[in-house]
Amino acid sequence: MNPDNIDIVLVHTTHSGNIGGVARAMKNMGLTRLTLVAPQGYPAPEATWRAASAADVMENARVVDTLEEAIADCQFVVGTSARERRIPWPVQDARRCAERIAEHSNSERVAILFGREDRGLLNEELQRCNLHCHIPTHEGYQSLNLAMAVQIVAYECRMMQLEDRTDLPEDAEWDTPFATADDMTRFFVHLEETLVDIEFLNPQAPRQLMRRLKRLYNRVRLDEMELNILRGILTETQKTAGRHSD
Amino acid sequence: MNPDNIDIVLVHTTHSGNIGGVARAMKNMGLTRLTLVAPQGYPAPEATWRAASAADVMENARVVDTLEEAIADCQFVVGTSARERRIPWPVQDARRCAERIAEHSNSERVAILFGREDRGLLNEELQRCNLHCHIPTHEGYQSLNLAMAVQIVAYECRMMQLEDRTDLPEDAEWDTPFATADDMTRFFVHLEETLVDIEFLNPQAPRQLMRRLKRLYNRVRLDEMELNILRGILTETQKTAGRHSD
Repeated sequence: MNPDNIDIVLVHTTHSGNIGGVARAMKNMGLTRLTLVAPQGYPAPEATWRAASAADVMENARVVDTLEEAIADCQFVVGTSARERRIPWPVQDARRCAERIAEHSNSERVAILFGREDRGLLNEELQRCNLHCHIPTHEGYQSLNLAMAVQIVAYECRMMQLEDRTDLPEDAEWDTPFATADDMTRFFVHLEETLVDIEFLNPQAPRQLMRRLKRLYNRVRLDEMELNILRGILTETQKTAGRHSD
Repeated sequence: MNPDNIDIVLVHTTHSGNIGGVARAMKNMGLTRLTLVAPQGYPAPEATWRAASAADVMENARVVDTLEEAIADCQFVVGTSARERRIPWPVQDARRCAERIAEHSNSERVAILFGREDRGLLNEELQRCNLHCHIPTHEGYQSLNLAMAVQIVAYECRMMQLEDRTDLPEDAEWDTPFATADDMTRFFVHLEETLVDIEFLNPQAPRQLMRRLKRLYNRVRLDEMELNILRGILTETQKTAGRHSD
């Protein structure tokens, strides 16, 4: 994916605050090319305020009079659309659209169109698109805020860009190595001794106690430092019990 | 996935307009349970305006004084976090978090925490979580608007619901319910007291001991029986220490 080949195109935006929100949503996800088609009441303080630290994206936006001009040099045009259309068009959800956008952007100029706050893109505008993008909102409330719609599509593009990375497990960047099976065996011996010392475990009637504790500590995968802390607690507990029995 | 088991929890929100934006983002994706922990300057006209047709979600929000109260009955707690932490915690991106949330919500109460606009969740709050959620923003601009962050996580939950995946989590057929956040709070108090009693923990120089232990036991998600065993061990250890000090 090449983000420099991807244009976000806002068509006839009426609430200029949303333009700021869109700029921020884009920059958060690594997109920077914004085109405004005949925005109403723009520029405006509200837009600058909502752009926060993405004011640069907004200031660098291209402002044009017509959609035709906005997408003139684009080879792959995607139109976002919430409504059902009378004429069927190739349509995919935001995730699959992002795949297509990522692929095309490697070698082509791509535009993603977002329509008016109240009516979205008109049929005439949607018909200029290679693909329609559907964001699967809940049937109870379909109307997405403009900046939110951009956020979701930009997020999916970002995820696509990151997907090259092999999936990382949740503890990929742990600070300490995980304990070995050998360490764990010694820990469980120590734990069992200590539980006998404090008379919590009766060796004559052990029930399922150690089994449950082994399941717990093996499930969590202790790291070496955690293991040391637990061993330290056991040692201190044994000392306490020992002083008592002396 | 059962959306009725998923709470969005906003912790100390300072711009009340964002609460309206969150309500709308949630309803667009089929989530309706909102909890506000000590929101500032709320209710406010700005919130109502931004909620648009999701005013019902906002009006039905639960407002509580503390995070503890908000998550008391939750069995799976996810905290969203942008910043790097000194102690790593189990962390996954929003997509994988949504998988886990979807799975757990089938039978358990789930909370997803979002922090303050300026500082996010504090370390103490993040330590109450079973899992941290990372939204992979671009390194050039990491600071996501609060409602945008909720939008992305809610969208991923919605996608998960639509995928109708039948994969079962590794603990789908566990024999005992998992402990609630309230249970865990009491356990950590008991654990800390005991470590002081056996003189393993010096309250004057606690170092990072409790933080590491909280990470460990939140990571594993104790079930109720395991929690009872550990509480029993602590009680027995305290008795042993008490006999000694008499």
